[in-house]
Amino acid sequence: MPGDPQYELYYWPFIQGRGEFVRLVLEDAGADYVDVARLPEDEGGGVAPIVELMQAHADGGPAPFAPPFLKTGDLILAQTPLICRYVAERTGLAPDDGADRLRADQLMLTVADAVNESHDTHHPISGGLYYEDQKEAALRSTEDFRAERLPKFLGYFEGVLESNSLGKQACLVGDKTTYVDLALFQLAKGLEYALPNAFAAATVTTPRLRELVEHVGERPRLRSYLESERRIPFNEWGIFRRYPELDAEG
Amino acid sequence: MPGDPQYELYYWPFIQGRGEFVRLVLEDAGADYVDVARLPEDEGGGVAPIVELMQAHADGGPAPFAPPFLKTGDLILAQTPLICRYVAERTGLAPDDGADRLRADQLMLTVADAVNESHDTHHPISGGLYYEDQKEAALRSTEDFRAERLPKFLGYFEGVLESNSLGKQACLVGDKTTYVDLALFQLAKGLEYALPNAFAAATVTTPRLRELVEHVGERPRLRSYLESERRIPFNEWGIFRRYPELDAEG
Repeated sequence: MPGDPQYELYYWPFIQGRGEFVRLVLEDAGADYVDVARLPEDEGGGVAPIVELMQAHADGGPAPFAPPFLKTGDLILAQTPLICRYVAERTGLAPDDGADRLRADQLMLTVADAVNESHDTHHPISGGLYYEDQKEAALRSTEDFRAERLPKFLGYFEGVLESNSLGKQACLVGDKTTYVDLALFQLAKGLEYALPNAFAAATVTTPRLRELVEHVGERPRLRSYLESERRIPFNEWGIFRRYPELDAEG
Repeated sequence: MPGDPQYELYYWPFIQGRGEFVRLVLEDAGADYVDVARLPEDEGGGVAPIVELMQAHADGGPAPFAPPFLKTGDLILAQTPLICRYVAERTGLAPDDGADRLRADQLMLTVADAVNESHDTHHPISGGLYYEDQKEAALRSTEDFRAERLPKFLGYFEGVLESNSLGKQACLVGDKTTYVDLALFQLAKGLEYALPNAFAAATVTTPRLRELVEHVGERPRLRSYLESERRIPFNEWGIFRRYPELDAEG
């Protein structure tokens, strides 16, 4: 229909979550999109349209397993790395070269792994149980994450930034900012929110990562998004949660 | 160099693990490949070449984060879903249509999520600790997995198979077997190994999934692989581990 937005994002309206990785790409691209669930309920917003879409089989095809979903024309996409790649390749936020696109996808999947592990620190037993009911396991899990995985992931991305000296500013692939840089920015922001002391300690040795976070946050469209009410604040329902007892000593 | 294989797989030689999803695609495609680490050490095999490749920066590009890796020409790929997709699209094991390729990728990423959760049942606190040191958490985690996530994942794939009636035999996308069917086969085989009672109970209501597992296992090249010594048996070092105390009552 004429007047319809090019992209419709379906994601929980009260958290950043995995949907935020998609929002950052759409916002930085200046894409024509609607964040469906954040519309007023009397305009078709709220959680209902997400659930409907999960239950429906669109065009005889399979419904997606879990949000975020992106609807564009007849296509319904799920899985954060796939959605981000799809939008980025159509809005100038992916590398142009084929081998670089594969490398970007690999790095995006590695960011997604780090996001999963970040989430599982506070929900090691099950995503279906309350934090309070798995707190002892979360303490052990986060202790290990702070000591081993956090420095390993950040050190890995620092090495990638070091080895890629093509860009004037730090970027992971090629010579310009792509969707994987936006994803790494969001991962860093989330970890900084959740575990401020551990993040500060781990990033002492990752100057290029700190540089990337700074200049990505200054990109005009992204900056105006981050300062707007469209950016949901981090909170304790999302992937990155600030439970002070899980962080390192300050 | 002439005589070099088209594909070199780098993966731990003593487990199926994530590398097995790649092996199945290569084997079913009849691809020209070498499973590098499984060569005798005096022919360049063993764990050393994996570690070397992880430490090296190939062609100025970033080293991959974790195995499996696939080397083909100048390209080094990492991340299981990406490697499988790459090989499948070049060997007739991916859908031909663009929208179907996106759908296949989405389903592959969903299989990968199920694989991660399967692994985390026995290692909920940390992949760096022994099972014995997180056994209590593993009991709770697997109980939840058996009750909630296992039926949810298998039921989801059953629904996808139901909604896709294009193929003569059960397949997830389009009208022929693709790499995502091989991946779902491997996930099912792994879950059946790890949690035989829970798997048997969950698959009572998934006849199409059972059909898929059966006919994928009968594909001539795959069958001959599965019966060969190249197929490493499931064991308690991999993703899918049989700890009887974690399974449901028989």
